[in-house]
Amino acid sequence: MQSFSIGVDLGGTNMRVAAIEDTGRQLETVCASAAVNRGRDSVIAEMCNIIREIAGKFTRSHKFAGVGVGVPGVIDMDTGTVFAAANLPGWTNYPVKDEIQKQLGTAVILENDSNCAALGEKWMGVGREANGLCMVTLGTGVGGAFIFNGTLWHGMLGMAGEIGHMTVTPDGPSCGCGNRGCLEQFASATAIKRMAEEAVARGKFPELASAMAANPDASAKVVFQYALHGDAAAREIFVTVGWALGVVISSLVDALNLPVYAIGGGVSSAWDVFSPALFQELRKRSIVFRASDPEKSQLHQKKTIVTRALLASDAGLIGAARLPLLSEDSLVLRTA
Amino acid sequence: MQSFSIGVDLGGTNMRVAAIEDTGRQLETVCASAAVNRGRDSVIAEMCNIIREIAGKFTRSHKFAGVGVGVPGVIDMDTGTVFAAANLPGWTNYPVKDEIQKQLGTAVILENDSNCAALGEKWMGVGREANGLCMVTLGTGVGGAFIFNGTLWHGMLGMAGEIGHMTVTPDGPSCGCGNRGCLEQFASATAIKRMAEEAVARGKFPELASAMAANPDASAKVVFQYALHGDAAAREIFVTVGWALGVVISSLVDALNLPVYAIGGGVSSAWDVFSPALFQELRKRSIVFRASDPEKSQLHQKKTIVTRALLASDAGLIGAARLPLLSEDSLVLRTA
Repeated sequence: MQSFSIGVDLGGTNMRVAAIEDTGRQLETVCASAAVNRGRDSVIAEMCNIIREIAGKFTRSHKFAGVGVGVPGVIDMDTGTVFAAANLPGWTNYPVKDEIQKQLGTAVILENDSNCAALGEKWMGVGREANGLCMVTLGTGVGGAFIFNGTLWHGMLGMAGEIGHMTVTPDGPSCGCGNRGCLEQFASATAIKRMAEEAVARGKFPELASAMAANPDASAKVVFQYALHGDAAAREIFVTVGWALGVVISSLVDALNLPVYAIGGGVSSAWDVFSPALFQELRKRSIVFRASDPEKSQLHQKKTIVTRALLASDAGLIGAARLPLLSEDSLVLRTA
Repeated sequence: MQSFSIGVDLGGTNMRVAAIEDTGRQLETVCASAAVNRGRDSVIAEMCNIIREIAGKFTRSHKFAGVGVGVPGVIDMDTGTVFAAANLPGWTNYPVKDEIQKQLGTAVILENDSNCAALGEKWMGVGREANGLCMVTLGTGVGGAFIFNGTLWHGMLGMAGEIGHMTVTPDGPSCGCGNRGCLEQFASATAIKRMAEEAVARGKFPELASAMAANPDASAKVVFQYALHGDAAAREIFVTVGWALGVVISSLVDALNLPVYAIGGGVSSAWDVFSPALFQELRKRSIVFRASDPEKSQLHQKKTIVTRALLASDAGLIGAARLPLLSEDSLVLRTA
């Protein structure tokens, strides 16, 4: 009898709940509102209802392995509370895990959403052959996660993976975190919008100015559309995205020599327009990448893979469902 | 009966061999020439003679655990060959480990010298209480090493730890590795000498000009002496050292959230003059450091320790002796 587990991908706006077989096959997926203004208790109650409903459909054909929940925040793994979560006001310092467990009567594992994405890519995506992985998630912000020796690396406080706040240029644009020149200021959807606005302000981008005025919410996507159609100013912005990613990933390749660096999140759909600049920087800057360049190096049989993530927006959902399938051993190695 | 092991710290100029008890106590240490021009075979033969001589003194009072050798190069752990070693010409692609084992008739473990220093600090230095450690070694160049979950992280090709080639400023000074603005171009003894020469060339530093002319070999130390005595130009150079370290270590703290970051190597003797600038950058730039600042944060009981290494130039020697005392399990986790 095949096992299945439930994965939950909780965002600030939506949540998705999926039943996934231990083969990785998605049995069923449900999307519901997680709107912050509905309040924490209402969101948790609905999450538990959906979990019960979906799980009930497969408990006769499959063995039930448990529930994993991906949350956009820092998790205290000892207590199952959310320590910090910018997009989930009211969720911090509340026993989220205990509450869900109580409502469901089954064991629940809470995990950071970037860590879930890394687990998903390791399980069913670009990291399947690898024992180590660095995940970089380009969305509204920039997140990250590390897998060493097949195991998530949480760091001492569960705060590992703040790749978005690694420094690209020490005197670059100010970041909300207090630093200047963070990767997030160059490679997030927010940064793409800012750079487009700056280009508009310099008068470089009259077509975009009107497009952005018409649709202020989707401007990173609009910039991408212009870049796809060859607009020089839009392409220049994505060259900056690739350049900044190249600077930071070069440092990570030299420091950590992991086998796979996966770029995911919404902005990664612009891979074709930013990745040439990324690889140009990698080949120029990283001595370890040059020794293991898949296209050029003859030095090693083992190659460093820097690639677009495979599972797109499903990575976190699939990784959350992976959590109950991992052994205890794999789950407790979170302390530094 | 106490055990003991032999550690060897092999440099381009000297080698040191020590018998060390499994309590960490140094029983005896011998220093000998490892001058490159004597040739590889002559250096290996002398190393083996010294090892036999020292080990012979303690085999009646102690149980002999084995030999660990720290080498300044990239080691292929599968074959025990040195893959790349800038300061040991003639040693690459030669079965170093097999040859030493043959001459000694005992098992030998070869390891990169920065990794040995990290093991030494973990065993007897600043990392004793910690399960994870980042070691940064400031010498002629800048090296590094990582310990996760108590185990050395070698990376896919044994090349992990190239912290000296992480980027501080993307358009900074050219580095021999092909990159620009590497940490090594700001925080190595070589960089301190270069920055002093640049200050001299700008006419900022007339006293140092004559001191450097008199003693060109020791100029990083001379700059340190001037800084200790309050010379403004010399202090400015060490502010740059601390600033560059602060930029890179902030990125590493945010990415990895390790409990301990230890700064060792010869240049770390200037800790008092460069560390204020290092901590200023850490507090400004690293969101994870601020959440766990030993002096300021009330958020967490667990603190991020950034500190001068404790064992100074003995770290590598002590760590090499530690290698035979580690379990097989701890030694095989080198693949990524």
